[in-house]
Amino acid sequence: MTAAVPNAFDDPAYRQGVVELLGLLAYGEISAWERLAEDAKMAPTLAQEAEVAAMASAEWEHFAQLRDRLFALGEDPYAAMLPFQPIFQRFHARTQPEDFLEGLLKAYVGDGLAADFYREIAAFLDAETRELVLDTLSGTGHSEFVVDVIRDAIAEEPRVGGKLALWGRRFMGEALSQAQTVVAERDALTAVLVGNADRPGAVMDLTVIGRMLTRLTEAHTERMDKLGLAA
Amino acid sequence: MTAAVPNAFDDPAYRQGVVELLGLLAYGEISAWERLAEDAKMAPTLAQEAEVAAMASAEWEHFAQLRDRLFALGEDPYAAMLPFQPIFQRFHARTQPEDFLEGLLKAYVGDGLAADFYREIAAFLDAETRELVLDTLSGTGHSEFVVDVIRDAIAEEPRVGGKLALWGRRFMGEALSQAQTVVAERDALTAVLVGNADRPGAVMDLTVIGRMLTRLTEAHTERMDKLGLAA
Repeated sequence: MTAAVPNAFDDPAYRQGVVELLGLLAYGEISAWERLAEDAKMAPTLAQEAEVAAMASAEWEHFAQLRDRLFALGEDPYAAMLPFQPIFQRFHARTQPEDFLEGLLKAYVGDGLAADFYREIAAFLDAETRELVLDTLSGTGHSEFVVDVIRDAIAEEPRVGGKLALWGRRFMGEALSQAQTVVAERDALTAVLVGNADRPGAVMDLTVIGRMLTRLTEAHTERMDKLGLAA
Repeated sequence: MTAAVPNAFDDPAYRQGVVELLGLLAYGEISAWERLAEDAKMAPTLAQEAEVAAMASAEWEHFAQLRDRLFALGEDPYAAMLPFQPIFQRFHARTQPEDFLEGLLKAYVGDGLAADFYREIAAFLDAETRELVLDTLSGTGHSEFVVDVIRDAIAEEPRVGGKLALWGRRFMGEALSQAQTVVAERDALTAVLVGNADRPGAVMDLTVIGRMLTRLTEAHTERMDKLGLAA
């Protein structure tokens, strides 16, 4: 705690942006927990239910870390999360899985998308927040299970592949649409996301956001490929 | 690993009883996880949802420990759990909470009952299994939150107390009924529960079981008292 170290949080715009970001991520994690717990019930076997429960449990751990950071910053975590509730509720309502495979695919591409997003933004964050964010993205690691189950299901019944490919496109379309809502509504948050927070007064560069979304979409396409699905 | 140490698992009846016990406990934990995740959705605030999610998460950790012990014993954990699925499904179907408070009360008395039960049986188990069981019962520790919420609700609307007292009685009645089904159907498990496993050929002493259930009921009554509810 020396005065020589500039504290990123001395900038109120940066602080606000980070609080909004942590609120967004925390709400994303608890709503992922909620949905995975829901999806687990569709599992055809107890072993598969336990796999999904393990994924849900990892989301819960992430949630707790993000919430506790908000507490440590002296913020009310729930107040920080609440503004993002309608966005996630809309997103989940529009991407409600019809069966266990759709739920698994959503969990897999959602987890991958979140991890990519966390990595994208990490560069613009102060060291402590960056460490938390990078810490939070790791440790789900249940992808192998999902890849196996989905590939097996397609091998057994090729029509499943077409249905899941459609589902994956719908997922990504809705995710991009909700992301754009956040960008449109949340200036402080968006400034942090594109690294403008340390350049007060910088014109919000929508092409920077656009490029980030393009990279996220490309990574999504690769993930779909890995599952044997056309994105 | 010296030959001088008698291995409790050399006795096939004891081994079978412990495998059944671990299967019972593991299924109990994952079904508690499932129900808490369901109940969390009824929470009136995000903060209360997070409290219930934390309780669910603790049940998940317990589940994972019990399952992993079954793996370590060379058993298929899911095969060991499956026979107990109908019992827990019946129990949960008959004690489906109508609102958030009923869900909280169920979680609280269920957790307390499980902990008492774990303590009751620990004495009859081999050291390793005992350690696991005692380890599993600790660490939920979200009771204070539940006590506060329920007492506040009753203070605000005394009629709630009568409704919850009824609900608590129904819960305990169903729990005892399902417990008796397990005792009736599972000789090897019951032998472990009453400490008969090391006395092969001992007559199954139903009064021992009866006394255990009485002690569990008394502890339940005390818990209800603490909430300000007549049991």
